[in-house]
Amino acid sequence: MARIYDQYVSKMQKIADIGHSIAVLSWDKEVNLPKGSAVRRSQQMATLSGIAHEEFTDPKFGKLLKRLLPMRTINDKERKNIELTLKEYKKATRFKKEFVIRRSQAISKAYHSWTAARQANDYNLYVDDLQNLIELKREEAKIIGFEQHPYDALLDIYEPGATVVELDQIFNDAKKGLKTLIREITSQKQVKSSFLKKYYPKNKQWDFGLEVLKNMGYDFNLGRQDISQHPFTTSFSSEDVRVTTRVDENDLGNMTWSCIHEGGHALYEQGLPSSEYGLPSGAAISLGIHESQSRLWENQVGRSKEYWSFMYPRLKKYFPENLKNIKLNKFYKGINKIAPNYIRTEADELHYHYHVLIRYELEKKIMDGSLNAKTLKTAWNRLYKKYLGVVIPDDNQGILQDIHWSHGSFGYFPTYSIGSFYAAQFFRQAEKDIPKLKQQLARGKTDKLLKWLRKNIHDHGQTYSAKEICERVTGEPLRFKYFMEYANQKFRPIYKLKV
Amino acid sequence: MARIYDQYVSKMQKIADIGHSIAVLSWDKEVNLPKGSAVRRSQQMATLSGIAHEEFTDPKFGKLLKRLLPMRTINDKERKNIELTLKEYKKATRFKKEFVIRRSQAISKAYHSWTAARQANDYNLYVDDLQNLIELKREEAKIIGFEQHPYDALLDIYEPGATVVELDQIFNDAKKGLKTLIREITSQKQVKSSFLKKYYPKNKQWDFGLEVLKNMGYDFNLGRQDISQHPFTTSFSSEDVRVTTRVDENDLGNMTWSCIHEGGHALYEQGLPSSEYGLPSGAAISLGIHESQSRLWENQVGRSKEYWSFMYPRLKKYFPENLKNIKLNKFYKGINKIAPNYIRTEADELHYHYHVLIRYELEKKIMDGSLNAKTLKTAWNRLYKKYLGVVIPDDNQGILQDIHWSHGSFGYFPTYSIGSFYAAQFFRQAEKDIPKLKQQLARGKTDKLLKWLRKNIHDHGQTYSAKEICERVTGEPLRFKYFMEYANQKFRPIYKLKV
Repeated sequence: MARIYDQYVSKMQKIADIGHSIAVLSWDKEVNLPKGSAVRRSQQMATLSGIAHEEFTDPKFGKLLKRLLPMRTINDKERKNIELTLKEYKKATRFKKEFVIRRSQAISKAYHSWTAARQANDYNLYVDDLQNLIELKREEAKIIGFEQHPYDALLDIYEPGATVVELDQIFNDAKKGLKTLIREITSQKQVKSSFLKKYYPKNKQWDFGLEVLKNMGYDFNLGRQDISQHPFTTSFSSEDVRVTTRVDENDLGNMTWSCIHEGGHALYEQGLPSSEYGLPSGAAISLGIHESQSRLWENQVGRSKEYWSFMYPRLKKYFPENLKNIKLNKFYKGINKIAPNYIRTEADELHYHYHVLIRYELEKKIMDGSLNAKTLKTAWNRLYKKYLGVVIPDDNQGILQDIHWSHGSFGYFPTYSIGSFYAAQFFRQAEKDIPKLKQQLARGKTDKLLKWLRKNIHDHGQTYSAKEICERVTGEPLRFKYFMEYANQKFRPIYKLKV
Repeated sequence: MARIYDQYVSKMQKIADIGHSIAVLSWDKEVNLPKGSAVRRSQQMATLSGIAHEEFTDPKFGKLLKRLLPMRTINDKERKNIELTLKEYKKATRFKKEFVIRRSQAISKAYHSWTAARQANDYNLYVDDLQNLIELKREEAKIIGFEQHPYDALLDIYEPGATVVELDQIFNDAKKGLKTLIREITSQKQVKSSFLKKYYPKNKQWDFGLEVLKNMGYDFNLGRQDISQHPFTTSFSSEDVRVTTRVDENDLGNMTWSCIHEGGHALYEQGLPSSEYGLPSGAAISLGIHESQSRLWENQVGRSKEYWSFMYPRLKKYFPENLKNIKLNKFYKGINKIAPNYIRTEADELHYHYHVLIRYELEKKIMDGSLNAKTLKTAWNRLYKKYLGVVIPDDNQGILQDIHWSHGSFGYFPTYSIGSFYAAQFFRQAEKDIPKLKQQLARGKTDKLLKWLRKNIHDHGQTYSAKEICERVTGEPLRFKYFMEYANQKFRPIYKLKV
């Protein structure tokens, strides 16, 4: 006899099939779409989104969830699935159709005016539509509901359970800790990284990128890499997880670390349990945890001396001319250069968190109403002066640089930083748990690390929350000090600072 | 005030969006899919198919159609859309869910055992599942309904309005006409085509294929070409029509004419009116008319002396070594070589129709019950001996060669031949209507021909049936004699036969 729980599973798998179909259309849009068909494609994706939404908010489904929740015939993992789905169901059904349409129109307008403003390098073209979207996001926070800060409602979308109270703590620690280290570093002689900006032919970069992915354990039987304007990872199931990269022939670093970063995301998705397809227990925990996987590979592994002591001779085979006079140590220092900049996506490992902090502070004020689109630019420029000591030269290199707000994604940025902080905390634990991890990396062996990530994080889907997984794996909640430890251990020797 | 007709349009566009999403998933499956994700992808496609079916067979939609049909506020074109949709609606709702599931399982089984039989080169592994599928197709014909022959019900799926009575006439004419010409040709000295089987590097073939498509007027802003195992054309709207090809480095002809053939299909799809998206008035008329477009480009244009008098010097630039000693006339003769063979897809322009005729005769008997899967192979081999004079060496080169039956596609094959016959009749009319068409082709100008096809055929979608469009364009119903005229005019000079 079929269990009632199976009805829930079928419904969730149906919705997942629709969602992943949208992801296929979206991937194809970024990778393959002929110029003339963007409008039609967006419409086709919107139709599927509408169907997925209808399926998910079906009142019968709500009743099924409420009926299942207290049942004794389901186990703990199943109950957790029902709980998490019911939370999403309640959130989704709180929005009236009228609001959803209004928000989607506002996003569409804001995105278009952001694009126009980028072209004209003029924030003024964007300000009204952004303000309109901000008002809707504040309305959205009220609809979702919150206990302390309206921003909490939006943070929860990307990082379930995250709050301003907690993030304030983390970012305050980060602000203080990073300030000292960065000040010491910038007083030292700068390292050179110009060798990364020589001419590196596209085909060879591409081939090296594939070697990097293979070395990480990315499974090409369950995915592929393609070229797109902005690198991304997408999953159509754990059996089809695709990454994209871009190749700048005058910047080797661009492809290399985007490849490792996306590879880290992809390993998480390929590692999610296939048997739990469509269910919370088969899905990634949060954007922060997702980012912890990409950052761990990108930085803890992919900018470590051990990793490159194995990989650098291989890289040299692709580009013997460019690198023949660059020794490993010089390469290692160059790829870890610290210098302030006004572009987040080009920031180094340390300054990066000031970029996020600035956005975090601004978003908090946007959400509590103390900033609006008109006053935002001045505040942006002021904070860049304050935290990074840079004068924003123009809007494109300032407030217009990120796409996120034009998509209505307020609350997204903090997940980048906490991802890095989780990465440091996880990696420290992995070093404890895996004998001679760094020596293994120095021999090109990444399999034990991947196995550790699978067992501790990937395998569980959303069965544990971000907080729970962090406690389970490291014995503690997320703490900034592990990132600081990592940063000191790495950068002090590079910059010849006292340890 | 919105018209009731607009509700119909919205519904049809929604269904089209789902259908085209399936097409994107299917294209991606053929072109990009990682090995390990075929099963999940099929499931995702099945989910969308189920949703599309539910949407289309929604009783409310049926009521809307019936209400709209007699309304005075709709124009003739709109009424034609409603009529055609209602016909499909009635057909779709005649099938009980139980039957649809049974059929889909039978197809799945038959496809798998066909694949296994192909691998073992043994028809016996396929025979039971094929018989099961045959029985279901006979049941399907009864459910659809027919006036004279059960086969008519299936023919109508692919070629609306086609019947055994008409096709018997056409194929009888073909059988007689072709027999004489082929007998005369095979008594002559054979032409040489071995130069096509030299080594032609993949990249250069690919580039030449793109040049061919551009020359035809295929719009790369509204489509793209990729590689797949079997060449095909797919459309996600008239703004995104994609073709695929395959490249055999030891056979230049394989890529070249599959490219032109698929290009012909694609020009039809790119030419369908974008404003009629999702409606019959924006869709291709029938498989026969579709095939007329591909065959016209492939044969009337793409195997003509005029076309190659322009294109051959260009081809030679790609492969100067291979072709330096081959003069245009020798090339032209070589690409029009006539010789019997047992593989349909490798057949020449004349023998091809015997391959189709054989399948037509067998399918008729399958449908009236005088043949079954067990007796089919003997009948197949006997007809190949009778019509083509060849002894089938094994099952893979005989009854197992086509995928169609394993998909349950009975009634599909005849559209290949009538497509060729329509092509000849249309092209003859185009030559009358377009001054100096052949001279234009000899100068590489295809735009007038494309414009003619657009105006006479593509622009109308399904507003006229195949029969109506043929009468409108050529003043006559489909007649085999125009193909015969074309064949005589072309092959008699090549083989030095009296005209």
